[in-house]
Amino acid sequence: LNAAAQGVFIISVTPFTEDGSLDLDGVGRLMDFYLSHGVSGVTILGMMGEAPKLGAGESRAFVEGVCRHLDGRIPVVVGVSSPGFAAMKELADFSMGAGAAGVMVAPPGTVRTDSQILDYFQSTADALGETPFVLQDFPLVTNVQIAPSVIGEIVRRIETCVMLKHEDWPGLNKITALREAERAGGRRISILGGNGGIFLPEELRRGADGAMTGYAYPEMLVEVCRLQSGGDADAADDLFEAHLPLVRYEQQPGVGLAVRKHVLARRGAISSNSQRKPGRSLSPAEIGEVERIIARLDRRLEQL
Amino acid sequence: LNAAAQGVFIISVTPFTEDGSLDLDGVGRLMDFYLSHGVSGVTILGMMGEAPKLGAGESRAFVEGVCRHLDGRIPVVVGVSSPGFAAMKELADFSMGAGAAGVMVAPPGTVRTDSQILDYFQSTADALGETPFVLQDFPLVTNVQIAPSVIGEIVRRIETCVMLKHEDWPGLNKITALREAERAGGRRISILGGNGGIFLPEELRRGADGAMTGYAYPEMLVEVCRLQSGGDADAADDLFEAHLPLVRYEQQPGVGLAVRKHVLARRGAISSNSQRKPGRSLSPAEIGEVERIIARLDRRLEQL
Amino acid sequence: LNAAAQGVFIISVTPFTEDGSLDLDGVGRLMDFYLSHGVSGVTILGMMGEAPKLGAGESRAFVEGVCRHLDGRIPVVVGVSSPGFAAMKELADFSMGAGAAGVMVAPPGTVRTDSQILDYFQSTADALGETPFVLQDFPLVTNVQIAPSVIGEIVRRIETCVMLKHEDWPGLNKITALREAERAGGRRISILGGNGGIFLPEELRRGADGAMTGYAYPEMLVEVCRLQSGGDADAADDLFEAHLPLVRYEQQPGVGLAVRKHVLARRGAISSNSQRKPGRSLSPAEIGEVERIIARLDRRLEQL
Amino acid sequence: LNAAAQGVFIISVTPFTEDGSLDLDGVGRLMDFYLSHGVSGVTILGMMGEAPKLGAGESRAFVEGVCRHLDGRIPVVVGVSSPGFAAMKELADFSMGAGAAGVMVAPPGTVRTDSQILDYFQSTADALGETPFVLQDFPLVTNVQIAPSVIGEIVRRIETCVMLKHEDWPGLNKITALREAERAGGRRISILGGNGGIFLPEELRRGADGAMTGYAYPEMLVEVCRLQSGGDADAADDLFEAHLPLVRYEQQPGVGLAVRKHVLARRGAISSNSQRKPGRSLSPAEIGEVERIIARLDRRLEQL
Repeated sequence: LNAAAQGVFIISVTPFTEDGSLDLDGVGRLMDFYLSHGVSGVTILGMMGEAPKLGAGESRAFVEGVCRHLDGRIPVVVGVSSPGFAAMKELADFSMGAGAAGVMVAPPGTVRTDSQILDYFQSTADALGETPFVLQDFPLVTNVQIAPSVIGEIVRRIETCVMLKHEDWPGLNKITALREAERAGGRRISILGGNGGIFLPEELRRGADGAMTGYAYPEMLVEVCRLQSGGDADAADDLFEAHLPLVRYEQQPGVGLAVRKHVLARRGAISSNSQRKPGRSLSPAEIGEVERIIARLDRRLEQL
Repeated sequence: LNAAAQGVFIISVTPFTEDGSLDLDGVGRLMDFYLSHGVSGVTILGMMGEAPKLGAGESRAFVEGVCRHLDGRIPVVVGVSSPGFAAMKELADFSMGAGAAGVMVAPPGTVRTDSQILDYFQSTADALGETPFVLQDFPLVTNVQIAPSVIGEIVRRIETCVMLKHEDWPGLNKITALREAERAGGRRISILGGNGGIFLPEELRRGADGAMTGYAYPEMLVEVCRLQSGGDADAADDLFEAHLPLVRYEQQPGVGLAVRKHVLARRGAISSNSQRKPGRSLSPAEIGEVERIIARLDRRLEQL
Repeated sequence: LNAAAQGVFIISVTPFTEDGSLDLDGVGRLMDFYLSHGVSGVTILGMMGEAPKLGAGESRAFVEGVCRHLDGRIPVVVGVSSPGFAAMKELADFSMGAGAAGVMVAPPGTVRTDSQILDYFQSTADALGETPFVLQDFPLVTNVQIAPSVIGEIVRRIETCVMLKHEDWPGLNKITALREAERAGGRRISILGGNGGIFLPEELRRGADGAMTGYAYPEMLVEVCRLQSGGDADAADDLFEAHLPLVRYEQQPGVGLAVRKHVLARRGAISSNSQRKPGRSLSPAEIGEVERIIARLDRRLEQL
Repeated sequence: LNAAAQGVFIISVTPFTEDGSLDLDGVGRLMDFYLSHGVSGVTILGMMGEAPKLGAGESRAFVEGVCRHLDGRIPVVVGVSSPGFAAMKELADFSMGAGAAGVMVAPPGTVRTDSQILDYFQSTADALGETPFVLQDFPLVTNVQIAPSVIGEIVRRIETCVMLKHEDWPGLNKITALREAERAGGRRISILGGNGGIFLPEELRRGADGAMTGYAYPEMLVEVCRLQSGGDADAADDLFEAHLPLVRYEQQPGVGLAVRKHVLARRGAISSNSQRKPGRSLSPAEIGEVERIIARLDRRLEQL
């Protein structure tokens, strides 16, 4: 993983069987699904990957399964955020040994001021050693507001910070500020947009290099990136807007992951939509709404 | 205001002149704009109405100006949430005297358990006397999670609670639960959806009676409600989806109000897009994005 | 008010009659109580002063009543924190006109990064003009973490910031850091400790100039400051520790103000312990606990 | 572990060596220290036990080490709070197998309404099977407010909930409400106070059965419980108040654990005061303050 990364790093779900056990047998099918839709990388054990609900042994088994199946065809990023640096380092080292390309770290809610944030990522880098890492900037969940100048300073100080998973909301001006700072002499890092892709066209036009999110139609994310980088903003917007009703529906906190797993199961990417407890599945009314949205999406795609 | 209210109660912005003073002269123009687009009611001094930035005298002057201009043509609801019941009652009594139809109250973040919430709204009702009120359920901002059973109990106990401004997110199942509870014997109240309208079609189909939100194209909200209540769900969705890119863009916290005021000023509803300090205006890049979205919206509306 | 202020600025309660109306007749008695116990200043309309529950007219009447009664004998500081700078400026200007010596401002929870905090206080200073102000640093309530370096920068940039009401918790190292920065060349401001005085001896020894808090026995705060500044740390600690059980009991969120008003009413400083709604009074069990603590305090004071 | 438990269940620190590795060799010494001071039980892997910073293997090794050394002399409670029920059950089952007497569970911040809380603990009980558990009620950290009626309902429904670790703040009236509800016909459970013991005398007099907290002088907690249960409230208060300055100093968030480990190391209970990263140690000024407080404590104990 390096600062030149671009395209779509899909945030992978973690597949479980109906009884809640980790579905290691399903890893290949899920990765093949993502590969077949053109993603440039895959990120596992992220927030939408139910990582905190896995035991340490399960996390390792999943990392191993994914890396073995992908076998270097595309880079694997592993979420390693942890309350302690020892556990973070342990999972990071294991992952790199298993073939991962890098790791991702979100700050804990206890770091608040600029210097606390800087110190935290310095300690992170010290713990991770040479392992390249993605800084996950997701204030809505972490409750940590990172100023663009602080991201700039982290990038300046820490060579191994190679990518920003950008999901501040609102954050479009942050992308602009970061790119302007780079033009003024900073090191350039990769910026991938998150938030389910709900601002993807604007993010790309502000200077993002792609997306790192888990929308259940990865081909939309891939194609919007391709069209936009080819200069066809209108075609990118046309495709994006066709999907926007579902992207929006997936944004609902709590419901979102159930929607995503429902659609992925429906598309054959996973064998079961089940989440490990505590989790939820869709109510009949919700399933009806998702099906309606998908039917309209299909019709609209035909018209494009 | 009563429990049979339906349609669109537009959340009005508060107009300021460029120097930040309350634009009382502009009240008539703004209300005429809303009226001309078919709204059924208007809600002032809500969260997107910059209410906390007004002095008490200004709040009264604005209430008076709005009520005088509308002169009973459509009902006026006044946001009166306050840390103290004395101030809440004061503004509510003044508003009703000036011709308002009812008031709106959101709970403070300090009430948390079911019984604390019940007690809070009982005290609210005691303070308000006979004034009908809207319960604003907006956990993302208030940090108060109100269970459907608690809303049901409030409705059962408190006759003057006539409407729910629903902006839990996710909250579609909450609407369904409330309507089911009513069918099981409860009193029916009006439910209007908020959140900028981003789930409006689904909310209506779950049983909402309309919308109480402030999207800068009120005619979309009005028409979607009309189409859906007439049974034409596809036409409702077609119109909604044409606007969805802008609805989404307006959802950005902080940026949202600047977008809304920008569009309203562009449409001639207000003379200035200025917010009272602390506030913000749009950056050039943001203006470009909004203009692009509007241009695409216009083209798409032509095709409908 | 200037940066040389020291001693005890008592956080005044706001007196209400049993029916919840502002007890303007009781202002003189309350101020005389504080004066008689040797306070160096008085701070009104603070968080423990139920300020948000007052109407704008009431706030002004209270400010006027306090300033008129004190008549310049000791400086009056007025809490003017507000969601909008217009209202903040309005109350500040009124207060200075009425004879106040300065105002106090806490940041809103929406400012988070170092530069947002700096910008907020710059805007505050711009709004306040020449009025000297106290920066209230109270993260537990405001949810804003201000780094010592940011306080230093505010002091450097803004001449009218003359005092810090310090109630970070833990914050002893912050006092030390601020004093060290001053020794390295910064402007010295007054630092007064808050938090009900529960770390007063340590705060003074770290470099605080006194206390700005509202413990119901102001004479303890005054005497601890006097003893400590006279070098008699052991006597200061002896007195402090005699009061510590009550200081601790007053620390309970929600209960604290009821305890304070109970004790002040018991001591004749206010005619009623009532809080304006929403508020609470002490349960019989709580009254029993407070009375037991006071009885033990009295015995212990006799032994000193 | 059953509902008749009383006395002091000490919250054990987790010992680390200077280099941050788990100090399994030091487990015996630490447990002997606690035993020698008369505790009735020990709780490990609690919030002040740095549990989230341990890997799964380390947690098990520590549980095993503690249980083996204590060998049934006093009951061991293991903190098993987890984002997922699978991991919770895994650690609980392991602990019970290793000889623990029960486990402790705090709710995640995502459960908010009464019924969400009830559901969460029902799911907890389902996951834990026959293992008795302690409900940890600590709103300041968990951000979950549990009404007394909800605790009552949990106790009524769930036989395996045998103890409440009470650290609501303020929570004295909650103890009273729970005991009153029991007298009205509910099942009685054990209530042990937390919060570092800062309200221990009042908690006991309200009906608590003891304390579950980790103050560095366990003998104070034990003796206060003994004196109070023997009816000697004044002696209990005298001893408590002698320790109160240090109890208070330990209450500082973040600093508290460093103080506790400093004192425990000073007393020979652990070989190193080090915390696993991220953690902190005491500054020289803090060490000076702690030493001063201890010197005064020693003098005061001589006078009792």
